[in-house]
Amino acid sequence: MITVSILGAGNVATHLFEVFLHSETIKIVQWYNRSLRALAMYQDQVETTNNLNDLKPADVYIIAVSDDAISGLSEQLPFKNRLIAHTSGSVSVYDLDKKNRRAVFYPLQTFSKGVAIDMSAVPICIETTEKQDVPLLKALGKQIGCHTHKVNSEQRRALHLAAVFVNNFTNQLYRVAHEITEQEGVEFDILKPLILETANKVQTISPYLAQTGPAKRNDKKTIKKHLKLLTNEHHQAIYKLLTSSIKKTHGSIPRNN
Amino acid sequence: MITVSILGAGNVATHLFEVFLHSETIKIVQWYNRSLRALAMYQDQVETTNNLNDLKPADVYIIAVSDDAISGLSEQLPFKNRLIAHTSGSVSVYDLDKKNRRAVFYPLQTFSKGVAIDMSAVPICIETTEKQDVPLLKALGKQIGCHTHKVNSEQRRALHLAAVFVNNFTNQLYRVAHEITEQEGVEFDILKPLILETANKVQTISPYLAQTGPAKRNDKKTIKKHLKLLTNEHHQAIYKLLTSSIKKTHGSIPRNN
Ligand SMILES: NC(=O)c1ccc[n+]([C@@H]2O[C@H](COP(=O)([O-])OP(=O)(O)OC[C@H]3O[C@@H](n4cnc5c(N)ncnc54)[C@H](OP(=O)(O)O)[C@@H]3O)[C@@H](O)[C@H]2O)c1
Ligand SMILES: NC(=O)c1ccc[n+]([C@@H]2O[C@H](COP(=O)([O-])OP(=O)(O)OC[C@H]3O[C@@H](n4cnc5c(N)ncnc54)[C@H](OP(=O)(O)O)[C@@H]3O)[C@@H](O)[C@H]2O)c1
Repeated sequence: MITVSILGAGNVATHLFEVFLHSETIKIVQWYNRSLRALAMYQDQVETTNNLNDLKPADVYIIAVSDDAISGLSEQLPFKNRLIAHTSGSVSVYDLDKKNRRAVFYPLQTFSKGVAIDMSAVPICIETTEKQDVPLLKALGKQIGCHTHKVNSEQRRALHLAAVFVNNFTNQLYRVAHEITEQEGVEFDILKPLILETANKVQTISPYLAQTGPAKRNDKKTIKKHLKLLTNEHHQAIYKLLTSSIKKTHGSIPRNN
Repeated sequence: MITVSILGAGNVATHLFEVFLHSETIKIVQWYNRSLRALAMYQDQVETTNNLNDLKPADVYIIAVSDDAISGLSEQLPFKNRLIAHTSGSVSVYDLDKKNRRAVFYPLQTFSKGVAIDMSAVPICIETTEKQDVPLLKALGKQIGCHTHKVNSEQRRALHLAAVFVNNFTNQLYRVAHEITEQEGVEFDILKPLILETANKVQTISPYLAQTGPAKRNDKKTIKKHLKLLTNEHHQAIYKLLTSSIKKTHGSIPRNN
């Protein structure tokens, strides 16, 4: 049995609460948040508190609060030598107060409150300042059905940065496509199967091998037509930059990765 | 029963051949390609030819050859007043020789030879120069399990352009993410569930509502950190442009689409 307390009541904290609650090998000791309002609806299921001095012993304290609040909250903890782990992709493990054993338990997924997520699709990146703490965090991840990956600080930072490209930036390309279709009064819905297939394709082959289209073929005629169609300068700039990026990747020497 | 002949033997032609062949309400009259080699393995299943003069009557001739070859091939057809449809997203319907009835049967998906595709995930965009030809092409699409959409030239062009954003450009962002992770020796695989979830999310909510991350929050600290981490100037340029694009979309006035 792993005993856990959760600190914070946002998207990540709430998803973790739900899966910890349904695990038979994890016991949630307490759920802390600075304001009790967010926890009110859960008080029949778990002991809630807004007072750090009330925190009882637990194998691990998961700090799932806003990036900027992690360091301050860790300083306020009224105990030492216990294991604490934040859930951020970009905050350093050393930003946690060193009076406790420090770790990161970073779920590399996009969470929204109220949107269920299959935990087997949530890779957990684990980083610790002390080697001895890895097994417990790995076990915690596995017991909720996640794949876990031990990473170092540089690797976690690289993953977080790469996640911005495949999540936030990709989603913005979807948004631009939405604007382009809307302008001609045609349904964005027609693009949805292609969006899924594009994501599906790279599950089994590399993005390098999956690439197709006018930029890869260096089909100047089509590229020129497209640039003419794009009346929005901003869309044009994205078209030009990503076309040149594809040309750079697939230009001169063919590569096999 | 709809009778069809296919012209061309590439990705699209081959996929269409397979699904037409398995339909009980479609009969493939002939399969033409300029060289017979690509058709050799199918000659027991269908009548193949490399001679346009051999083409027999059919309800529709599907021209699935390279964009640049469509116009020339349509000119060489030795008959008139029959229905011919090309499968390109970017070639005008008027590029087809006007001695025949002209149409477009554009599958908005990404096809690769040998990669099976679920036809219910292939929207077919239909355009015709004569109204009377719409029902037959709609029926043809439906009989192979596709959703069909009647579009005009501008709409098809907008869809093709938008498809470049959600397919080619998105795939290039995956590629950049691959480069970023590779550089730190961390597996690109860890990002795959996030790639899928990002595509999944916009199946039910708009890309506008699905957006999250540092650019949307205007989290200057994280953006600065990320730009410092990106040693590749090219990756930096993409980061900057897409961050500013997200800010533009989500800046000043909140919108609800
Ligand atoms: N959302 C995701 O998709 C995702 C994915 C992976 C990792 N993460 C990371 O997980 C952590 C939490 O993210 P989230 O999306 O769950 O955040 P969120 O939904 O915005 O919730 C933030 C939580 O932090 C608390 N908080 C904010 N400022 C605080 C302060 N000064 N002192 C104490 N508590 C404070 C808030 O308390 P109140 O309820 O009182 O406001 C709230 O419970 C972040 O480090 C984030 O980088 C998020
Ligand atoms: N691939 C996709 O994902 C996709 C999706 C939607 C629409 N489309 C459109 O579908 C059409 C075909 O694309 P594809 O990907 O199937 O092409 P492809 O795999 O590259 O095959 C091209 C075909 O065109 C033939 N061809 C090329 N030049 C020719 C010429 N001058 N005269 C006669 N035949 C010629 C080739 O014949 P040989 O075998 O003799 O070389 C080959 O059969 C294009 O209009 C494309 O825009 C493609």
